[in-house]
Amino acid sequence: MRVELITIGDELLLGFTIDTNSVFLGGELAALGVEVARRTTVGDDRDAIAAAVRDALARADGVITTGGLGPTSDDVTMDAVAAALGVELERNATVVARLEEIWRLRGRSEPLPPANLSQAMLPRGARVLPNNHGTAPGVYVERSDKHWVAVLPGVPREMREMFSGSVRDLVRAAAPGGVVRSLAVRTTGVAESRLPELLGDYAEGVDGLSLAYLPGVEGVDLRLTARGLPGADADEKLRVAARKLSARLAPYAYAEGTTDLAEVVLAHCRSAGRRLAVAESCTGGMLGQRLTAIAGSSDVFAGGVIAYDNEVKIELLGVEREAIERHGAVSEEIVTAMASAARRRFGVDLGVGITGVAGPRGGSVEKPVGTVWIALATPDEIVAKQLRLFGDRDEVRRRAAQAALDLVRRSFAG
Amino acid sequence: MRVELITIGDELLLGFTIDTNSVFLGGELAALGVEVARRTTVGDDRDAIAAAVRDALARADGVITTGGLGPTSDDVTMDAVAAALGVELERNATVVARLEEIWRLRGRSEPLPPANLSQAMLPRGARVLPNNHGTAPGVYVERSDKHWVAVLPGVPREMREMFSGSVRDLVRAAAPGGVVRSLAVRTTGVAESRLPELLGDYAEGVDGLSLAYLPGVEGVDLRLTARGLPGADADEKLRVAARKLSARLAPYAYAEGTTDLAEVVLAHCRSAGRRLAVAESCTGGMLGQRLTAIAGSSDVFAGGVIAYDNEVKIELLGVEREAIERHGAVSEEIVTAMASAARRRFGVDLGVGITGVAGPRGGSVEKPVGTVWIALATPDEIVAKQLRLFGDRDEVRRRAAQAALDLVRRSFAG
Repeated sequence: MRVELITIGDELLLGFTIDTNSVFLGGELAALGVEVARRTTVGDDRDAIAAAVRDALARADGVITTGGLGPTSDDVTMDAVAAALGVELERNATVVARLEEIWRLRGRSEPLPPANLSQAMLPRGARVLPNNHGTAPGVYVERSDKHWVAVLPGVPREMREMFSGSVRDLVRAAAPGGVVRSLAVRTTGVAESRLPELLGDYAEGVDGLSLAYLPGVEGVDLRLTARGLPGADADEKLRVAARKLSARLAPYAYAEGTTDLAEVVLAHCRSAGRRLAVAESCTGGMLGQRLTAIAGSSDVFAGGVIAYDNEVKIELLGVEREAIERHGAVSEEIVTAMASAARRRFGVDLGVGITGVAGPRGGSVEKPVGTVWIALATPDEIVAKQLRLFGDRDEVRRRAAQAALDLVRRSFAG
Repeated sequence: MRVELITIGDELLLGFTIDTNSVFLGGELAALGVEVARRTTVGDDRDAIAAAVRDALARADGVITTGGLGPTSDDVTMDAVAAALGVELERNATVVARLEEIWRLRGRSEPLPPANLSQAMLPRGARVLPNNHGTAPGVYVERSDKHWVAVLPGVPREMREMFSGSVRDLVRAAAPGGVVRSLAVRTTGVAESRLPELLGDYAEGVDGLSLAYLPGVEGVDLRLTARGLPGADADEKLRVAARKLSARLAPYAYAEGTTDLAEVVLAHCRSAGRRLAVAESCTGGMLGQRLTAIAGSSDVFAGGVIAYDNEVKIELLGVEREAIERHGAVSEEIVTAMASAARRRFGVDLGVGITGVAGPRGGSVEKPVGTVWIALATPDEIVAKQLRLFGDRDEVRRRAAQAALDLVRRSFAG
């Protein structure tokens, strides 16, 4: 089955909004074994939408649109879809009743304004898709030739719930066997250009699965993709191939799928019965934020000190003023003092320290922007490492936090 | 001038990659007064690409493609574009020379493999667009009817440099007068559905500028857009209209453009000569991270304690154990103790505290997931506020950090 997506909205064309809806739908449809053949984005223009829907229906079996269902005058999708299908709009009594109910629940005594009633005008013959998070209903319309159009709202939360609640089943019922499934092996601390060398004969693919390199700020993901296999076979092949890749990429590979490095670190600590605290300077809380983003992190993560100001390093962490004056705040001496202070102050097994020059100012010839020291204090030792990171302030901070997490992870590997 | 974008890559259709290139190009073209009429995404398929380019050229004056220029067999854009234009591919000697030079610079002694030479096969009559960050050149091809196609790489950095370095000038030369410019008024702490009421006769637009409502996790942005005016006039109209909107939306409007609330808070503190420290529980460092994401924040932001574990609240912040046992860690008593401890421990004017239930676990009937207390301690008083936030763990944390920043901002308004 061939499906096309049409995302609607001036803001998408003008570059104000990132089209995350098509990312969600592309992934969901692939999981059902349905590949999106084409994606089109048009503005809030009735004729442009109608033409795009008509063109897509001529090529594909199904079309999903998102956006343009609000109550205001620039929301013209229903009208355009009806035109593309050659049917009339008609007022849907169920939807009118729901809109009036929402209106009353909001405590309004005057009657529903006509503008809101526009959301009850749906293409004749359409199946209504309820919206539990907003006022705009979606619709699913099937033509006599079985080609169909699903019309969803543009608000991501509403769109996702509507897809999961009704459209997914309608698509699944019509979908062929075989799925498109993927599994990524996540790496950090290694340049993308080094990977093909490390992978050798796996550089282009593994066991008939295709391989894609996806570089990001925190590392490179290697995505394996299986096409056209039954679901269980695809999963098994992906699992085996991912294990092969991970073995070649040790010690850089840290997880499969979408698992964050913070989660891997928490799991290592948990099974070793170790607790963790942090002392952050240039990352300003980002490392704590990464760790606490994982639900249930409190058994491992005790807390931290954001020692942004040097006085905080001195007062709360007990770093010596003279040491800062002699070596500078971005130095091996200070980062090791921070890591062991974190360990000591929080009464935990592992203390992590980060201090660096995130930029854009504050760099020097000796310590340019991107110079970052990270350290890990354990009951047995303190290890420190200097990094030279590239990128803007945000990238330097994200790479520093990732490298600090990786320092903890790799301490468990030995 | 009507321009269409075609972004190419299986990964875009499968939902693995977010199409940031079209966001960049949409914004850049709008700034030149050129609206993108349609955006199409197709996979790495020669026929699909050729058909999309042909269709787009029939509707628009210019077409920009991104992606599919690499050296591997799934990179077929040049071939497809040549087919759509009805011209042959031919080997470009300049590009061959450059590829050979790069090959030598990488220290390879064997001759350039034929696969790499595929990147030198360009549509006949094309103007070569140099790529300073990669091996794949782009091209600009003009047909006899003046319709044109610009073929750019998919790697964002390469694409951006190539657009800015050559394509922008080519488009500008052909573009009409007048620009499309926007300015957003940013609000927080007010529901989207309340905004039209507050805006009254500005709800649909201001002074002939259109108005769009863009709800996000941290608040709602109201985007004003001017179309078809000369640049300076557009800017002036936007500035005046934004001021009118902000006045209607006090005290919820906190900035114009893309300014983050953390930046606004830092500016308020700076002009009042006040310094700030934080004590975070459920946000785990996110508030510190937001503040330190702004370059130059160190004159205002001293640091913070990530008091994730209750023992940390007791040991590092001096919160009484008995108080935690009596009121629970998520309570007015504890959050005020945290805020004043942050103020005291860091020796600053303002202390901010956050404690809450971010979920998905840890909620109770009395304190369900989303229950968050925030507090601000100043030299004069301590104010605390209970929030009931909706959303998943990430959303609750982001809304909590935003609300805490807003508490600080609004303390300066009185």
